[in-house]
Amino acid sequence: MAEEGVKLLGFWASPYALRVHWALKLKGVEYEYLEEDLMSGKKSSLLLQSNPIYKKIPVLVHNGNPVAESLVILEYIDETWKQNPLFPEDPYERAQLRFWAKFADEKCFPAVIKTFSSEGEELEKNVKEAREYLKILDGAVGDRKDNQIDFLDVALAVVGHWANITGEIIGMKLVDEEETPSLVTLFEDVLEAAPFLKECTPEKSRIPVELAGGAGDKVRPADGAGDMSRQPRVDAVSVEDVAASREQPEILLAVVELVQTHGAF
Amino acid sequence: MAEEGVKLLGFWASPYALRVHWALKLKGVEYEYLEEDLMSGKKSSLLLQSNPIYKKIPVLVHNGNPVAESLVILEYIDETWKQNPLFPEDPYERAQLRFWAKFADEKCFPAVIKTFSSEGEELEKNVKEAREYLKILDGAVGDRKDNQIDFLDVALAVVGHWANITGEIIGMKLVDEEETPSLVTLFEDVLEAAPFLKECTPEKSRIPVELAGGAGDKVRPADGAGDMSRQPRVDAVSVEDVAASREQPEILLAVVELVQTHGAF
Repeated sequence: MAEEGVKLLGFWASPYALRVHWALKLKGVEYEYLEEDLMSGKKSSLLLQSNPIYKKIPVLVHNGNPVAESLVILEYIDETWKQNPLFPEDPYERAQLRFWAKFADEKCFPAVIKTFSSEGEELEKNVKEAREYLKILDGAVGDRKDNQIDFLDVALAVVGHWANITGEIIGMKLVDEEETPSLVTLFEDVLEAAPFLKECTPEKSRIPVELAGGAGDKVRPADGAGDMSRQPRVDAVSVEDVAASREQPEILLAVVELVQTHGAF
Repeated sequence: MAEEGVKLLGFWASPYALRVHWALKLKGVEYEYLEEDLMSGKKSSLLLQSNPIYKKIPVLVHNGNPVAESLVILEYIDETWKQNPLFPEDPYERAQLRFWAKFADEKCFPAVIKTFSSEGEELEKNVKEAREYLKILDGAVGDRKDNQIDFLDVALAVVGHWANITGEIIGMKLVDEEETPSLVTLFEDVLEAAPFLKECTPEKSRIPVELAGGAGDKVRPADGAGDMSRQPRVDAVSVEDVAASREQPEILLAVVELVQTHGAF
């Protein structure tokens, strides 16, 4: 017997889970959000059952049927709920969106993540590489004419966003107005065009400041990263969780490790 | 002005290009095949223009519009030519096919390729890992009920095929009847169900024997791998090329390097 309804298994800081949140919200699909406690290493039995291969979030469970891998989930959502299509109709345009999303996941995200755990000359080399990939991606993002929020916005906004956050943590810019003008604003542009997405979007300031709060000299938040006047919007993480994380300098490294070990978590 | 027609830029030994050959043949689409001389390192200007990001084959150029990345190309082909669909209609089934194709490309192919360049204990460890991934994939292949040749057949038949060939080259089996019964026969099953695909499919025996012909002790073709009575079916590679390859022991290593460096070539 198939279980009814739509469930999303995620983790509040995961850029990949955020893609799914956004896609569901854009479609107007009601869903139950289930936060995985990845920090503790205890994964829910639903996650282990739903994604036995990777044991990673995000997983979308629809009428008891699990779908894993964020880009696969986006395609599933678009094919299941036809309203507000994420893809244009033209096969060539669709292919381009898929190509760039794949490029982002295979080249840009790994390059951004690599900068986390390096220092000195290696860090500079990694930053250069990440910036090169992000510049290429930026060209693709900027070239689009359509103003509607599409698959690429949903898939890529988190790339520029994470690159921005990562830049604040490592103290070197990965995106900027000059070289990556589209990526640097895409996240905010989407939120401005669809303000209801903010409901499921963690505060930009939360990730570097709350998670990296105690990480000492390795963490140098850039100006403005510490805007604490905005409150977290993800209910699944309590104020207690956030407060506790400040006293745990290892949490930033744990997040980096989570990303490195689990890829899409 | 868009250029007319369908062109496929490939390389005869590429499993990724073979996917595109098969998809076009299954759809009954007429196309011009352009062999890239990857061995020489001289890529055509059409390839460099068509896939400036990766500079890799396969690329499908349709009416002057280039599409790169083999799985993206398969989706494009299925959306452009509706006959003989590669995907079922049900979004959940479609998601499963996409999930497994991604798994094959991200886990299985790299694991198979890794066995090429290792020896001794490392080789045994790599073989064990590859076999584990292939066993998981085999479960997904075997679980399907549909007899029609679909996206997964087109995408995955080459995985078992390459695993088989690689096993012959390294002298250790990566697929076998006991642990991977579906993968070990999938390639031949597809060719039996659609014999016209043979027109664009290189001989199984060609890859280990012709390419590895001079590679000396590193190459230990298993019994039956040296069946030379069958002739190559790919016109783009001349008899001269094949003959020449026998005198070039470095060609096998060049192919491995091509795969490692270029991924999908």
